[in-house]
Amino acid sequence: MSHPHPELPSPPPLPKGALRVVALGGLGEVGRNMTVFEYDGRLLIVDCGVLFPETEQPGVDLILPDFEHIRHRLDDVEALVLTHGHEDHIGAVPYLLRERADIPVIGSRLTLALITSKLGEHRIKPVTQQVAEGERHSFGPFACEFFAVNHSIPDALAVGVRTPGGTVLHTGDFKMDQLPLDGRLTDLGGFARFGAEGVDLLLSDSTNAEVPGFVTSERDIAPVLDGVFARAAKRVIVACFASHVHRVQQVLDAAGAHGRKVAFVGRSMVRNMNVARDLGYLQVPDGLLVDVRELDELPPDRVVLVSTGSQGEPMSALSRMANRDHQIRIEEDDTIVLASSLIPGNENAVNRVINGLTRWGAKVVHKGNARVHVSGHSPAGELLYVLNMVRPRNFMPVHGEWRHLRAHADLAVLSGVPESHVAVAEDGVVVDLIDGRARVVGAVPCGYVYVDGASVGDITEAALKDRRILGDEGFVSVVIVVDSTTGKLVSEPQFHARGSGIDPSDFDAMLPKLEEGLERAAADGVNDPHQLRQLVRRTVGRWVSDTYRRRPMIIPVVMDV
Amino acid sequence: MSHPHPELPSPPPLPKGALRVVALGGLGEVGRNMTVFEYDGRLLIVDCGVLFPETEQPGVDLILPDFEHIRHRLDDVEALVLTHGHEDHIGAVPYLLRERADIPVIGSRLTLALITSKLGEHRIKPVTQQVAEGERHSFGPFACEFFAVNHSIPDALAVGVRTPGGTVLHTGDFKMDQLPLDGRLTDLGGFARFGAEGVDLLLSDSTNAEVPGFVTSERDIAPVLDGVFARAAKRVIVACFASHVHRVQQVLDAAGAHGRKVAFVGRSMVRNMNVARDLGYLQVPDGLLVDVRELDELPPDRVVLVSTGSQGEPMSALSRMANRDHQIRIEEDDTIVLASSLIPGNENAVNRVINGLTRWGAKVVHKGNARVHVSGHSPAGELLYVLNMVRPRNFMPVHGEWRHLRAHADLAVLSGVPESHVAVAEDGVVVDLIDGRARVVGAVPCGYVYVDGASVGDITEAALKDRRILGDEGFVSVVIVVDSTTGKLVSEPQFHARGSGIDPSDFDAMLPKLEEGLERAAADGVNDPHQLRQLVRRTVGRWVSDTYRRRPMIIPVVMDV
Repeated sequence: MSHPHPELPSPPPLPKGALRVVALGGLGEVGRNMTVFEYDGRLLIVDCGVLFPETEQPGVDLILPDFEHIRHRLDDVEALVLTHGHEDHIGAVPYLLRERADIPVIGSRLTLALITSKLGEHRIKPVTQQVAEGERHSFGPFACEFFAVNHSIPDALAVGVRTPGGTVLHTGDFKMDQLPLDGRLTDLGGFARFGAEGVDLLLSDSTNAEVPGFVTSERDIAPVLDGVFARAAKRVIVACFASHVHRVQQVLDAAGAHGRKVAFVGRSMVRNMNVARDLGYLQVPDGLLVDVRELDELPPDRVVLVSTGSQGEPMSALSRMANRDHQIRIEEDDTIVLASSLIPGNENAVNRVINGLTRWGAKVVHKGNARVHVSGHSPAGELLYVLNMVRPRNFMPVHGEWRHLRAHADLAVLSGVPESHVAVAEDGVVVDLIDGRARVVGAVPCGYVYVDGASVGDITEAALKDRRILGDEGFVSVVIVVDSTTGKLVSEPQFHARGSGIDPSDFDAMLPKLEEGLERAAADGVNDPHQLRQLVRRTVGRWVSDTYRRRPMIIPVVMDV
Repeated sequence: MSHPHPELPSPPPLPKGALRVVALGGLGEVGRNMTVFEYDGRLLIVDCGVLFPETEQPGVDLILPDFEHIRHRLDDVEALVLTHGHEDHIGAVPYLLRERADIPVIGSRLTLALITSKLGEHRIKPVTQQVAEGERHSFGPFACEFFAVNHSIPDALAVGVRTPGGTVLHTGDFKMDQLPLDGRLTDLGGFARFGAEGVDLLLSDSTNAEVPGFVTSERDIAPVLDGVFARAAKRVIVACFASHVHRVQQVLDAAGAHGRKVAFVGRSMVRNMNVARDLGYLQVPDGLLVDVRELDELPPDRVVLVSTGSQGEPMSALSRMANRDHQIRIEEDDTIVLASSLIPGNENAVNRVINGLTRWGAKVVHKGNARVHVSGHSPAGELLYVLNMVRPRNFMPVHGEWRHLRAHADLAVLSGVPESHVAVAEDGVVVDLIDGRARVVGAVPCGYVYVDGASVGDITEAALKDRRILGDEGFVSVVIVVDSTTGKLVSEPQFHARGSGIDPSDFDAMLPKLEEGLERAAADGVNDPHQLRQLVRRTVGRWVSDTYRRRPMIIPVVMDV
């Protein structure tokens, strides 16, 4: 099994007739999925998503794939294929199209509707080409064939890519619900046929590779929701992902069956459900939907809200309800249903929401106490079906953290892929398919690219390190004004401290020590601002550390007049 | 069911003959457990633990119960009873004894050994009294009887308290392993006998009240560990809590059976296991233990390390191994066992450790893929046994977040406690037992008390808010030096920015605007530093927000000369 080495060299030039695969995101993390295929100088991109930041990336809005590898070759891009409409697959498209607006964007009907709606908010009008399962379309040297896959959003696709350098199957995200609500099964027969032609490299979704067994069908949620609605004495508030059309459909069905009206809450929920309804993916009986402002006129037991906020996002409607900081005031015996997964990293936030709602007397139904969620990703049992149907010559697990990629690699080996033909790569690692064998040949730089506010990339790892120190310890700034010729203090040093737990007046105790040090420096002829800053930082930092056993950031400022 | 109201009044004076219960920690959180009983002006304290901070309490080391309610009445304290030796029950004892050193500390043999060892590090020598299950001891008006309970540390106790104002049973933390390793069962028969006398108020551990069913026996881990050791090709590293004597015993047994030597890693692991061994709670065959420095002389398949760090603590040995920043270098095919629970809030950190270890080719065994942990707290099925055996007149769930307290309250009602006799309280809420009926009568202030570095309480909620802003956005400081008589700038303003993603030179673009504003202010005769600071903050803040759509903390400093 080839593993990336921490010190991989730059990759060699791509040999003639070979196919290169580089993931610029999605390997070693769940999110910012983006894979670049290269053949004969031409590029095909599959997906371009965002990753949501964790605690150690404070204040960051989004994390993008690192486009550096292709930045100077954007004109070589034949097409951007989007497998489905989730943020971790399409969220970074606006940022890629900012760099070249006319990259052809390829996707299914719903996927294109969602990305077009999102791009509209960025004032970008993309060049699109709609495709569907069963179709074949060539983009330069990349002859693509699309396959239906079932996932937690409708209209998802896998893509097969035939090139003279080899044949690849990229599953996108998928699961194998055998009784999907829309009847659209993952096309395992198509995978088998494609595999029979000879697949040189399979890239397959690893998110649930550690989970044994098989998915529960989405439709098994219906009786659970029905029971929740039947027992609900007051309002029902369902939080789920804003793109989960089938989940929302089931909530609408339950609401209708129990004589309740439904209102959507949250900008992305309203936007996506409008798109889904317009295109016929969401069936809404006449008169079922009401505006959230009309709810006050209905008795609580006739009301359902469908809301965002299932991940405990602090500014979401649901979090604000839990804090009683929202027009919808949670009351005793309201029922809240968290009909979604719990994305790793959000446990704390969601727990806080559950405790907040419970404190007001609401009942909270979640996947921990009722089957109100099923995953969108195939667990190990199903991944083996794909491996056994495709029988790829080489295998590369994608979409997952190290633990998931490694577990998926182990499954591939168990299913018969030789260990030497399994490439466990991370972002930026270059895998070349040469003469039917996939090998790690090097790596390109591939960092995290942070979006914070209006700009991309202003926030560097150094800035995040500063944020972590400031967030843990606060800072102390010390301003001195010195005479530029004599180096002597012109006025008393000023101390400012925030987040350090130190009262500025506390510094009176150390002022003599600082002034003495500065006087001695002036007497020694030291008047270089850099040296003076060092002196201040050292003197104040040591005093703070000795006195408080804390290490705030010390910011010395020397003004000369 | 009486719920605390957010605006509870101060409690009335305690009526003669009544018993008062106030939790200063542990209600609404998992940690810092501390309950104060008051009768006839005298106080009995049960437990005095710490809470570990979450993300929204950045940089904090520990959180203490709020002693304010008893601070001026420490001389009224008859005794501090410690139910067992876990940090969330004993961790704040050093801070309480700092305020009154001679409070009698009551506990079992192991509990007293652990707290005495901890207090030694704080240079405190406590006044202790050892007790055991089956014993009765009076402390002022509080006639206590102790009961054995089984938990994830040996020698844990529940305490029954008889007073003229009523009889209370406080379970401490417990579970009901029916085949415990040390044969020491939770004394359900004792609970039944005590209940038959008439228990006015039961306080019972709620941590697992949401979990259905019954615990798995600790001894069921043995065959799982045996299988892990049998398959391990290289080193085995087991991480678990430093106080889990029985878990460590099972690791030692497995190591012995497979011909491996064991070394302890981590200060608290070494200290606690020495205590447990000296007192006979841990059985160590001769020659089994080696010093960690001797490990290099043994082949990898003869080695076991027992380490702290099971919660992904960034500075722990295990986290540093995962980052290859430790003398023990993780290699392909090492086996790491996380034989512990995953405390809510630590999911991210633990996930990072698992991914780090996996990246180097290690196999990671954890409770998600093998039964290498069982909980120390009774789930709902067992809690019902206690409710049904004790049949208390009133019930108050303790030790848990809102969701747990509420779930436990629901169990009490189902078991037959009248809803009006169930008091769901939070920290500081005052529950009086008057004429056999427990009621919420008010609340005392009860905040979080933060330990950071050397000091207690320096870090306030305001400082934490500053840390959160600084951690998310960084800061910009702007220093201006003005002539104190004319208000005119004496030199060019200096900008400093950290964590904001703004390069100080970027401010050149807005300098004219700032200087113009300051000149206009000077012309208008404004030279009050407060007004000048306002002006600087507003001008710079608005420019930053417009330009970057970010909101760093703006720190204006006005020096006059």
